[in-house]
Amino acid sequence: MSRHILQAVAMGIDTHQEPVVYMQEDCHICRAEGFNANTRLSISTRTEQLIATLNVVRNDKLLVGQIGLSKITQQRLDIKDGESVSVSHAQVVGSLSAVRKKIYGHKLSDQEIADIVEDISAHRYSDIEIASFLSVCAGSRLDVDEIIGLTKAMVACGKRLKWADQTKVLDKHCIGGLPGNRTTPLVVSIVSAAGLTIPKTSSRAITSPAGTADTMEALTTVNLEITDIQRVVAQTHACLVWGGAVNLSPADDLLIRIERALDLDGEGQLIASVLSKKIAAGSTHAVIDIPVGSTAKVRSQKDAERLSSLFTQVGAACGIQIRCLITDGSQPVGRGIGPVEEARDVLAVLQCEHNAPQDLRERALFLAAHLFSLAYSERYEQGLERAIAILDEGKAWQQFQHILAAQGGMKALPDPSYQHTEAATTAGTLTAIDNRQLARLAKLAGAPATEAAGMRLHTSVGEKIEAGQSLFTLYSDTIGEQQYAMEFYRQSMIFTIEEAQ
Amino acid sequence: MSRHILQAVAMGIDTHQEPVVYMQEDCHICRAEGFNANTRLSISTRTEQLIATLNVVRNDKLLVGQIGLSKITQQRLDIKDGESVSVSHAQVVGSLSAVRKKIYGHKLSDQEIADIVEDISAHRYSDIEIASFLSVCAGSRLDVDEIIGLTKAMVACGKRLKWADQTKVLDKHCIGGLPGNRTTPLVVSIVSAAGLTIPKTSSRAITSPAGTADTMEALTTVNLEITDIQRVVAQTHACLVWGGAVNLSPADDLLIRIERALDLDGEGQLIASVLSKKIAAGSTHAVIDIPVGSTAKVRSQKDAERLSSLFTQVGAACGIQIRCLITDGSQPVGRGIGPVEEARDVLAVLQCEHNAPQDLRERALFLAAHLFSLAYSERYEQGLERAIAILDEGKAWQQFQHILAAQGGMKALPDPSYQHTEAATTAGTLTAIDNRQLARLAKLAGAPATEAAGMRLHTSVGEKIEAGQSLFTLYSDTIGEQQYAMEFYRQSMIFTIEEAQ
Repeated sequence: MSRHILQAVAMGIDTHQEPVVYMQEDCHICRAEGFNANTRLSISTRTEQLIATLNVVRNDKLLVGQIGLSKITQQRLDIKDGESVSVSHAQVVGSLSAVRKKIYGHKLSDQEIADIVEDISAHRYSDIEIASFLSVCAGSRLDVDEIIGLTKAMVACGKRLKWADQTKVLDKHCIGGLPGNRTTPLVVSIVSAAGLTIPKTSSRAITSPAGTADTMEALTTVNLEITDIQRVVAQTHACLVWGGAVNLSPADDLLIRIERALDLDGEGQLIASVLSKKIAAGSTHAVIDIPVGSTAKVRSQKDAERLSSLFTQVGAACGIQIRCLITDGSQPVGRGIGPVEEARDVLAVLQCEHNAPQDLRERALFLAAHLFSLAYSERYEQGLERAIAILDEGKAWQQFQHILAAQGGMKALPDPSYQHTEAATTAGTLTAIDNRQLARLAKLAGAPATEAAGMRLHTSVGEKIEAGQSLFTLYSDTIGEQQYAMEFYRQSMIFTIEEAQ
Repeated sequence: MSRHILQAVAMGIDTHQEPVVYMQEDCHICRAEGFNANTRLSISTRTEQLIATLNVVRNDKLLVGQIGLSKITQQRLDIKDGESVSVSHAQVVGSLSAVRKKIYGHKLSDQEIADIVEDISAHRYSDIEIASFLSVCAGSRLDVDEIIGLTKAMVACGKRLKWADQTKVLDKHCIGGLPGNRTTPLVVSIVSAAGLTIPKTSSRAITSPAGTADTMEALTTVNLEITDIQRVVAQTHACLVWGGAVNLSPADDLLIRIERALDLDGEGQLIASVLSKKIAAGSTHAVIDIPVGSTAKVRSQKDAERLSSLFTQVGAACGIQIRCLITDGSQPVGRGIGPVEEARDVLAVLQCEHNAPQDLRERALFLAAHLFSLAYSERYEQGLERAIAILDEGKAWQQFQHILAAQGGMKALPDPSYQHTEAATTAGTLTAIDNRQLARLAKLAGAPATEAAGMRLHTSVGEKIEAGQSLFTLYSDTIGEQQYAMEFYRQSMIFTIEEAQ
């Protein structure tokens, strides 16, 4: 295959994670090689190689013999302006034939899945190829064998953590879809206060206004290196860090970016994403919280039971003991939505404030109790007594501060620049809150990219509402986002208020 | 929603059909609005509006208050450097919720499909969104109702042609997958020589080394405006033009670009693409050739029967009478592959040369006979006699020249710059040719983008081969493409030669 040597020019264009290169339309190499817009090219330096998408350019910024690089291309190749790169047609990416097989409805083997995941984590897929793969694996399109294969493949291409006590390493996860449901910092504090190991790595938001990592980042440093995580866990039995920084599942991080753009969350992808990170984090026992509600991520008891069964089977096949808990997902948990506002709720519960959200407190105790029950092989009621005692005696709060100190100290929560309180226009009973629309509202206000953006609810389902009563306060960092979010609010039906007869 | 006025700067970057805009990283508007890499933006001038993907830039080419436009963005907005555009967050594209519904395995309604097709044809989808939609509609994922809905939606968003005789307008289509199977120019010439109306619009290659439009373009002008097509058909009862130029199915043209990049061809998408163009072209009767072979597009008799049944049902629901013909698809048809080489075969058959490929001649007669049988309600055998007479008396060749003269005259076929003849290394019997790999070889040589690129076969399945005997000649316009194609040839197994015992 013929290769051509070109001089690199940084274009300073951020194409996100897809490497793009730019060549002059009248470049003789484009002509000689039959390169045109969207051709996939292999770009090499002496030490690095990647596949990039070509954008053909007609302007005077590039000379003959030069090739423009987008930011991610330049970063991955680790080169400076003027250095040489070698360019050729990209070899056919072998695992794409397996993606096509799946598109056409056939089951994938473990080897095919492993090849796909390896190629994705090596950045050999274009964005539309990743979108295609994710779309045909979404819904219930992966069977249990494929999910096991995907989980193992994702573990295989990342790092794995090891702990002093390898027999009992706990973890928890919530399937999400409930704005504000920030139990993780509470559960980790309660469980590790009892001396159990729970090295929690969390993700950032995929389609929600905040992930646990986003909320924790408002309070402390979360992007710790592996050696720092090991130090924190050795000191406190726990940590509350972002999983992405430790490269536990590099393929998953690439997939999540496209899932986010497509507002997509597949069942198999979900299970593999969750369990691969738990396994890579060295966990042996985990509880999975599955909230069910008409506007939660899981909408019916039947779907929750199916998911629960899949999680348990895939976990068993991959050597981790899973207990799924199907919970009420009819409305948000806590009052705050968005990184900072959720952090305020967490602090209120830990500090046992009298106005702390009771629903958040109870959920955290419920999950902690199940973890105690798993770890000590005791009845749920015994676990619950243990959890309540730890929280009410202030030991969880003390332990939380201990963890944050080890991670680099506690930050003060920032205040938002703009806020707007919306009042009810009619009186009646609040009969429903649309979790999805509510999440969208908080996202339009700027969450999670802007920490202080989001909202605080002033009511909950079942409450009687007076006309003029405050429903929520919206927080944003810019007036543009506030206006845009409120425009969306007025077009949607987030709160269902039924007028009294 | 807040809008911002920015000054347009042409970036001269070809991002193919996806509009992209570029803004400075430190631009106060990015900050105020929460725009970041890959945000979808609404860009407006006084008269035009589109949705574009943002690439955030850090360089000195854009000043504060400026926005860079990729080529397609600039073309669609129809503006010059320095003119003003208005920028805001793009509104949520409503039909994307229907795509998600399909991703999750639910059936789409006619209205949902119509909304998706309308949004795609109005360029409101990003490339990854189109990739997602196509992937979940691929294989057999659309049922007959959805295919009918998709066909009607695609017709609704394009133009429709009308002809003098509206009761009998013929058409033909081949499902493809067989390199070299260029019967269309032959069938059109034979049928229209008899005075029947057959205004043929063809597509360019999707995943093959040449579409009929590519082959015809080697011989004459194919991108005719509607008024010109009407003149040609009035003069000759026929035409052989590219469908894309007349905007018969604008949504399909956008979809095909991503299908091509993903090397994808879905059953429902295929039927809707074919029939929407036939209906928009005003056809009332059509034959569909479905070649079946292990390396053809359709691999089994069962799949062919299923496709045949769907074509007939969808056709009936949309008011067009379809006759499907299931044919042998075990090897290429004719000897040439690629636009120019296929054109040579067509000319040889029309001119009744003694060394013209017989298999191509027989297929064309078979299809023409079925069209006569449909149009005159006569037996196939009668139609066949009619077709043979027209071809052998030179009337088809005369008619072909007549059509080309009306379209702008016949061009001389160009010669390729490079050729390489490959010889067999072993003796034996040629027992199989892999159509897909063969197509890939011709594409790597530069077909169809380079007209003269492609290949000529010197053998066919069943033939005895001597060591050293020529198997094929590869044609390309550049040495790079030839080397790359031959490298692929040596790694693949295109010809199966079984040695004599």
